[in-house]
Amino acid sequence: MLELYDCPNNLLNDFEFIKKSLEAAIAEAKSTLLKEVTHQFEPYGVTALALLAESHISIHTWPEIGYVAIDMFTCGETAEPEKACVYLKDAFQAQSHVLLKLPRGRISPEMQERIETSIAEATLVS
Amino acid sequence: MLELYDCPNNLLNDFEFIKKSLEAAIAEAKSTLLKEVTHQFEPYGVTALALLAESHISIHTWPEIGYVAIDMFTCGETAEPEKACVYLKDAFQAQSHVLLKLPRGRISPEMQERIETSIAEATLVS
Repeated sequence: MLELYDCPNNLLNDFEFIKKSLEAAIAEAKSTLLKEVTHQFEPYGVTALALLAESHISIHTWPEIGYVAIDMFTCGETAEPEKACVYLKDAFQAQSHVLLKLPRGRISPEMQERIETSIAEATLVS
Repeated sequence: MLELYDCPNNLLNDFEFIKKSLEAAIAEAKSTLLKEVTHQFEPYGVTALALLAESHISIHTWPEIGYVAIDMFTCGETAEPEKACVYLKDAFQAQSHVLLKLPRGRISPEMQERIETSIAEATLVS
């Protein structure tokens, strides 16, 4: 889960740039693109979803606040999602970012409680 | 983020059931489907991605272990993602589940650290 903050606003509404960046990120992650859907919102904002042999990548942009939310859901032994995250952070020229790794398929109710407590007690970006 | 454990294996390879459940969940969430892509993996497993006016929903199934990973990413004031989660948990007949709410777009580096510590220290489902 990758949060990109303070990106240049114009990049985040550039549909072709976002599509190209997603495809380049998939190559960086050594993953295989099977299908893709994209949408340009009015007046601004882009969503791009890539269905991968190794699960999926989603990108949602909010140009008006310079924010991009990226999810990279991968399975298998060969994918390198971290490389794609570094690539996207640089491509979107994020001034700050948060990268959170969550071990899907193994999260217990106990972990759920701990994570929720962490969130409740933590400082959020305002 | 919804983890479904111990679901009946046959349901998780039923492409039509999964597509129908996704669309019903979108209605439960009072969300708007814009585009959809799905894929049936060989020998088993299904991925379904829905691009919504309110962001996206992803479903990945692993019939061999009775596990389903669902992400429901919503923005705006009107979506009701919790209702869709209850619907999907019931539809997939999950014997146990974990539902984790993450406040996207507001996660600070401090929160990142706390969540990672929680995960490192927590009990994972084996």
